[in-house]
Amino acid sequence: MSDLVTFGETMLRLSTPVGERLETARELDLRIGGAESNVAVAAARLGTDATWLSKLPDSPLGRRVTGELRSHGVDPEIHWADSDRQGLYFIERASPPRETNVVYDRSDAAITTARPDDFDRSAVTDASVFFTCGITPALSDRLAETTDELLRTAQKAGTTTAFDINYRSKLWSPPEAREQLSGLFPAIDVLVAAERDIRTIFGYDGRPNDIATALNSDFGFRTVIVTRGKEGAIARHDGRLFEQPAFETETVDSVGTGDAFVGGFLSKRIDGAAVPEALEYGAATAALKQTVEGDLAVVTPSDVEKLVDPEGSGSGIQR
Amino acid sequence: MSDLVTFGETMLRLSTPVGERLETARELDLRIGGAESNVAVAAARLGTDATWLSKLPDSPLGRRVTGELRSHGVDPEIHWADSDRQGLYFIERASPPRETNVVYDRSDAAITTARPDDFDRSAVTDASVFFTCGITPALSDRLAETTDELLRTAQKAGTTTAFDINYRSKLWSPPEAREQLSGLFPAIDVLVAAERDIRTIFGYDGRPNDIATALNSDFGFRTVIVTRGKEGAIARHDGRLFEQPAFETETVDSVGTGDAFVGGFLSKRIDGAAVPEALEYGAATAALKQTVEGDLAVVTPSDVEKLVDPEGSGSGIQR
Amino acid sequence: MSDLVTFGETMLRLSTPVGERLETARELDLRIGGAESNVAVAAARLGTDATWLSKLPDSPLGRRVTGELRSHGVDPEIHWADSDRQGLYFIERASPPRETNVVYDRSDAAITTARPDDFDRSAVTDASVFFTCGITPALSDRLAETTDELLRTAQKAGTTTAFDINYRSKLWSPPEAREQLSGLFPAIDVLVAAERDIRTIFGYDGRPNDIATALNSDFGFRTVIVTRGKEGAIARHDGRLFEQPAFETETVDSVGTGDAFVGGFLSKRIDGAAVPEALEYGAATAALKQTVEGDLAVVTPSDVEKLVDPEGSGSGIQR
Amino acid sequence: MSDLVTFGETMLRLSTPVGERLETARELDLRIGGAESNVAVAAARLGTDATWLSKLPDSPLGRRVTGELRSHGVDPEIHWADSDRQGLYFIERASPPRETNVVYDRSDAAITTARPDDFDRSAVTDASVFFTCGITPALSDRLAETTDELLRTAQKAGTTTAFDINYRSKLWSPPEAREQLSGLFPAIDVLVAAERDIRTIFGYDGRPNDIATALNSDFGFRTVIVTRGKEGAIARHDGRLFEQPAFETETVDSVGTGDAFVGGFLSKRIDGAAVPEALEYGAATAALKQTVEGDLAVVTPSDVEKLVDPEGSGSGIQR
Amino acid sequence: MSDLVTFGETMLRLSTPVGERLETARELDLRIGGAESNVAVAAARLGTDATWLSKLPDSPLGRRVTGELRSHGVDPEIHWADSDRQGLYFIERASPPRETNVVYDRSDAAITTARPDDFDRSAVTDASVFFTCGITPALSDRLAETTDELLRTAQKAGTTTAFDINYRSKLWSPPEAREQLSGLFPAIDVLVAAERDIRTIFGYDGRPNDIATALNSDFGFRTVIVTRGKEGAIARHDGRLFEQPAFETETVDSVGTGDAFVGGFLSKRIDGAAVPEALEYGAATAALKQTVEGDLAVVTPSDVEKLVDPEGSGSGIQR
Amino acid sequence: MSDLVTFGETMLRLSTPVGERLETARELDLRIGGAESNVAVAAARLGTDATWLSKLPDSPLGRRVTGELRSHGVDPEIHWADSDRQGLYFIERASPPRETNVVYDRSDAAITTARPDDFDRSAVTDASVFFTCGITPALSDRLAETTDELLRTAQKAGTTTAFDINYRSKLWSPPEAREQLSGLFPAIDVLVAAERDIRTIFGYDGRPNDIATALNSDFGFRTVIVTRGKEGAIARHDGRLFEQPAFETETVDSVGTGDAFVGGFLSKRIDGAAVPEALEYGAATAALKQTVEGDLAVVTPSDVEKLVDPEGSGSGIQR
Repeated sequence: MSDLVTFGETMLRLSTPVGERLETARELDLRIGGAESNVAVAAARLGTDATWLSKLPDSPLGRRVTGELRSHGVDPEIHWADSDRQGLYFIERASPPRETNVVYDRSDAAITTARPDDFDRSAVTDASVFFTCGITPALSDRLAETTDELLRTAQKAGTTTAFDINYRSKLWSPPEAREQLSGLFPAIDVLVAAERDIRTIFGYDGRPNDIATALNSDFGFRTVIVTRGKEGAIARHDGRLFEQPAFETETVDSVGTGDAFVGGFLSKRIDGAAVPEALEYGAATAALKQTVEGDLAVVTPSDVEKLVDPEGSGSGIQR
Repeated sequence: MSDLVTFGETMLRLSTPVGERLETARELDLRIGGAESNVAVAAARLGTDATWLSKLPDSPLGRRVTGELRSHGVDPEIHWADSDRQGLYFIERASPPRETNVVYDRSDAAITTARPDDFDRSAVTDASVFFTCGITPALSDRLAETTDELLRTAQKAGTTTAFDINYRSKLWSPPEAREQLSGLFPAIDVLVAAERDIRTIFGYDGRPNDIATALNSDFGFRTVIVTRGKEGAIARHDGRLFEQPAFETETVDSVGTGDAFVGGFLSKRIDGAAVPEALEYGAATAALKQTVEGDLAVVTPSDVEKLVDPEGSGSGIQR
Repeated sequence: MSDLVTFGETMLRLSTPVGERLETARELDLRIGGAESNVAVAAARLGTDATWLSKLPDSPLGRRVTGELRSHGVDPEIHWADSDRQGLYFIERASPPRETNVVYDRSDAAITTARPDDFDRSAVTDASVFFTCGITPALSDRLAETTDELLRTAQKAGTTTAFDINYRSKLWSPPEAREQLSGLFPAIDVLVAAERDIRTIFGYDGRPNDIATALNSDFGFRTVIVTRGKEGAIARHDGRLFEQPAFETETVDSVGTGDAFVGGFLSKRIDGAAVPEALEYGAATAALKQTVEGDLAVVTPSDVEKLVDPEGSGSGIQR
Repeated sequence: MSDLVTFGETMLRLSTPVGERLETARELDLRIGGAESNVAVAAARLGTDATWLSKLPDSPLGRRVTGELRSHGVDPEIHWADSDRQGLYFIERASPPRETNVVYDRSDAAITTARPDDFDRSAVTDASVFFTCGITPALSDRLAETTDELLRTAQKAGTTTAFDINYRSKLWSPPEAREQLSGLFPAIDVLVAAERDIRTIFGYDGRPNDIATALNSDFGFRTVIVTRGKEGAIARHDGRLFEQPAFETETVDSVGTGDAFVGGFLSKRIDGAAVPEALEYGAATAALKQTVEGDLAVVTPSDVEKLVDPEGSGSGIQR
Repeated sequence: MSDLVTFGETMLRLSTPVGERLETARELDLRIGGAESNVAVAAARLGTDATWLSKLPDSPLGRRVTGELRSHGVDPEIHWADSDRQGLYFIERASPPRETNVVYDRSDAAITTARPDDFDRSAVTDASVFFTCGITPALSDRLAETTDELLRTAQKAGTTTAFDINYRSKLWSPPEAREQLSGLFPAIDVLVAAERDIRTIFGYDGRPNDIATALNSDFGFRTVIVTRGKEGAIARHDGRLFEQPAFETETVDSVGTGDAFVGGFLSKRIDGAAVPEALEYGAATAALKQTVEGDLAVVTPSDVEKLVDPEGSGSGIQR
Repeated sequence: MSDLVTFGETMLRLSTPVGERLETARELDLRIGGAESNVAVAAARLGTDATWLSKLPDSPLGRRVTGELRSHGVDPEIHWADSDRQGLYFIERASPPRETNVVYDRSDAAITTARPDDFDRSAVTDASVFFTCGITPALSDRLAETTDELLRTAQKAGTTTAFDINYRSKLWSPPEAREQLSGLFPAIDVLVAAERDIRTIFGYDGRPNDIATALNSDFGFRTVIVTRGKEGAIARHDGRLFEQPAFETETVDSVGTGDAFVGGFLSKRIDGAAVPEALEYGAATAALKQTVEGDLAVVTPSDVEKLVDPEGSGSGIQR
């Protein structure tokens, strides 16, 4: 039994260095990434017992995913498929004014056919927290149903359910997302959402505080966190509002920042911390993630604590 | 109007260095490869005016393919697709006793929906030689029909049609291949086939010479070439048999060797050479290909001629 | 017949990574670069039919140049030389306060002996625009004469002639440049000049607008563009003045920025756009170039259009 | 509870590419290696539940070791030390006639102070097999005592104890090794020894078969395996002799070959296989190891089975 | 006889790229670094005849150090040890808010047993300037005594003694440093100290000018230089105060900046320059160092002079 | 005063990895190479005090050469030129049947204008041995005269003169070489010549022994060494014949093998060894060179001695 169980797709991530383009690159950096396993990695590295549920092809590519996750302490519980694809994404990182470009190649990945029965139900029902995100139901109808059932199963068993909207315009339109996500909301206890996504999908306007409050009253979440990039995050929990500024960073790689935030937040909540402390921990984890290449928050508890509670020289180098 | 027109799929090729495994690799080498474009590259580099017909996604990945082909002098005539996939293959090169492992990821590639009307018919009818191979009809039913129609169109227009069996057990079974290929044979003038494939698919046995002769008489090809790896090649043409030994090599990368052979052979035939001379040219191109990393025969006419007709020091270094 | 024909030298470019020095580097990045082929690449990638005329050694080094140009869609029309050198340049990129240092090694390059008769005259006379720059006549006396003759031939045939001053202090002194360039000016329709070069070579002072106006009236160009780095560009065309600000960038590599500007501008003009629209297109192409390593503007029309006419999330990442 | 528990040191491995020397190398490849964890990795990858016991510094270097081991499915049970060193070794790989040179830098590594009480005794007593090797007691007096006590504890609890001599002349002299190892032999059930080491340390001569028989009768092991490099291995078990030839390889990296053999052998024995079958499995694992860079046998059960029981094309490439 | 002789430890430096972490890095960059050899390299490259005294293991690792130093013109005078360790340090460079982390692995390095008799006394007595720093006496008691004796020997012989405090909290505590360093101060003519170190170790407060003045009057140095990072440096010399601002930089690697400053300062002083000129030269050398990867100031006299006395285009690129 | 002084050109060496071609390479390995400095490096690394005389451009490229030579212990005595070129060569290494291709780019290198007065005569007259080779007089008429005068000056002063024919067909024809070299022969004491070169240039035939004897009697050398690649070498010295077989190697890079042989031979002769011992030392140095990438024999005396007088395990790995 794990403290945190997450469910979703992990892709191979093939990236060019900044300044290089996919059209002309001769070498690609190979890593892995996926919102739910990114969350599991952040939490596991911070001391949480974390499991990731998924379906993968039984191939070197699928094993590439589990090997890297295990190296960070995540326990992968995999339904191995004989023949399906391993999802991929290409990322052409860029400096302004050129935008970083993500080319998804994830259609028909093994996970798109995952059914609830592919997994041992106790993985979900015994967990303290079950997490998935809005990308997963967008991948296939089958997966939308499976996501729905896993969330309900978890909630029914007393497992806290957490969910990040993570809207991807390359996967679905705002109306599609709204319909699908609204159906899932009753089974969700903790909702995380980027302010921009909430505005795009649900048409809320007003100040961020108002949005958090409205989401809470409209859908009855126990906790709502509205993330605002460099503006930090706002949480509405048990009727109270909390604000958490973001830490300033010189960003090396911004992909996975939101997942690191969620992983740090959930890890601390599972440890029994109150929401404001967990928010700060999440923000620090997110800031550190941005200093590391790849989707994963390769951090230690000590890294996070030093940021939350700094001391010492401030010279930027420890020696 | 090109001398040589080829039709088929070109994939991105993602490879590990020898000694590294896909499960643990951190960087992948990115090149391109596909039997028909490999043939076009070899021929174009040897001086033939060569065009490659295909369907590709209108994305950085698709443009990666055309850019690299153009750099070798091939003229890509592309039907650009808005949304389909770019085919890929992963290759984990190995030294004995471990076998090199190819992981295809080409299902639903853009080309699988290519129709004859996607291309300007004159590309095929005006060519001197039209070439495709057994991989192409194996990729989808739609593509099997398109291959059939393009071959017939070419032959009807007086264009010489050339075809390499190129059996891939990961794409279809021997009976499937036999049925499909037999249907194409009447539209094929020049058949190239690995001895092993012929035995596997068509059940021929006997000595290689007998196989070449039997193929010729059973299907009425004008030219049949049976390739035998390190044993060289045998051609049956206009009733005569020709044997061509292989050049000895210290192989760096064997993928694409057969395509280099075909490219060298066709290039020389288009130039008006007799079959034995073209066979020798093909064998030399194939040998040089094996000294170069990747699918492509990055050679020059002078490289090939030096091998066919050597002179000079023999010290293995020119200075 | 091409829409745009450019003439000049393309060198091999051997660079160290930022932070490394030539004295201690163990690996060099190998690319190509040359003002006129840089312009051709930018234009070709943006959809213009572009040809580059030059003289190269018939060696792997010379073929390295044509292969890379072809990969971007430029058609190289080469007079191959048996024995001359391939020009090179070493570039040691640096962050402030250290200056990036360029070590040219281009003396006696094949192109320095190029004569007008080395090329098919129709390449120049059939073009819509013929472009070369101030580096070319500075390379040798022979080349100064050839440049002069090609410009006159083009202009006489009704081809628009465009010219970028591109002053290089390592090639000649201001008085040498002034004398030589003044002789070429009557054959030039569109002049592009960095404000700094104009001041250095011709001693103009006053505001940029005044300089553009003075150049126009002193030499009778149809179009004068004065480029001012981060200050943008000013054009004087048919008696009117246009200003174009520069786009802000986080620069990865600034070499080739001016050439990208010219390539974008000419491409748009050839398409029929008015000067202000072409200026904006040029400025966007130049900005994007700075996000890409190497001399070449590896951009797409869609990249440029998104910058000129942005829409969407503004999060800096497309997914 | 694990099927296989191993105990020993794992070092960081810093290597140059073949052809490069430590004196001039600018980049080093970073991996990990240590006899006992190499055995655990081979076994874990082949399906055995494997744990590795050790003492490591609580630093990024120590975590580097556990992360990589976990990625291969090994469960590290670590006594984390606040301040000791992480052992290292530099390896300068060479082609003949130059010898590969190993520069150890492992003095005062954290493990040299490991005591039996640093580990949960049940890890050893609950295991099916406990494995360590002759390097471990050679590292410090403290470690010699700990090794002795762990072996006795395991044997007393009914756990099968396995031990590989692994003589290292850079760590101790033959007489030192003889004295120390003889003291450990009563607690060892399965002894693995290179023929050369046995001759060097114990002065046995005669044919390999005689050596295996003599070791057995002199010390009363249940199983003795004498490994002979390219000559294969000989086992004496329950009064019977078994011979296993080595598979032929084109070796990429020979370090860790013996450990892969032991890992494959023990994995199969734990699965219930008889000695001859386990020997063959070990030999195949060892052969595959040599095709992979680094100390670790990055293999799959399917790789090993294909080698033991080959079928298919024999063309050396699967596609 | 050299103008400048320095004494201390040089380590191998194993670094990850920015954005990568030691836990997951696969390749490490290998260079060398040590405060006193860094000073010698800066001075030697600027034209000073410089010798570095040390004790190293007679191994490829020790020779790696001398080879790299010689390449920059430093003359290493080494007492070769048969068996001791080569000191190392790992550096995980980071962008804010993550701090760059240095993992030292230098205990029991060969130099820790160095005695004055290990070196030819004339190396020190014939020099114009003898330099060492506060790291050296912190490495071992033996080395503290040797440092003391070498400083006294030098001073007695009329050699100017220079010393940089270089406090390292990973090596000793402020009280330990204070006691040890105070004992060395009478033998020191020129003291360099970071403002922060002086406050930490000696408890001085007040403005930087006051600190410099107090140090001077308390200990009787001929020259005191207080370095203040981006705030520049202050010197108190022969009763006068001099201020030198720092040059602005875009820093690639800040390690070794202080050593470059000292090397530039001493080089210029040895050439006969007055203190203010030497300070400016030191500041420029330090600024340039920050644009170069690694500990070493890979600069030329011309680089430094261009920064001190700039002229020319200011476009940031020389061509 | 050095024991060995050599004179000649050192080029930058830009190489592709085996399997890559110059036409498509994206990265080049940067090293240095030149026959006479290769000899100096081999000798210096084996303990001989070695100086290299040359003329280089005062640029980062020229300093690249001296830095790398100094790192191996060679003392470069350079006449720095303000403006000339740094010679280069590109090398495209290949496996059979493709030949390794060298593209020289050394015309007008700084050294081609070197005059005897550019160097301090005592460098030559005080040496024990002065070495140069047949490449140097082939580079320019000026250099042919300078070579002649330096050889005569050395010989007159009692310095032993040594010379390697080193015929390069890309630099001159056999008759040109014959005429030029014959003029130098009276000033040469020790001649080294590849058997093939002697046959090509001087038309000698017969067995190698006969060639060595004939050279000796025709030109009156004190020592003649005929090198025969894998067949070893033959020396005729003071009327006696000595044969030295070559050591077997798995060659990584064969460039510089002959220079390593000469460096090892001269180093040992300068140490006072007899010709047969020096030949064996030379052959071992040459064999080790072939295991190292680049022109230089990065070896140690201990490496060479272990090969000449092997002992120990023979397992090919030292640990």
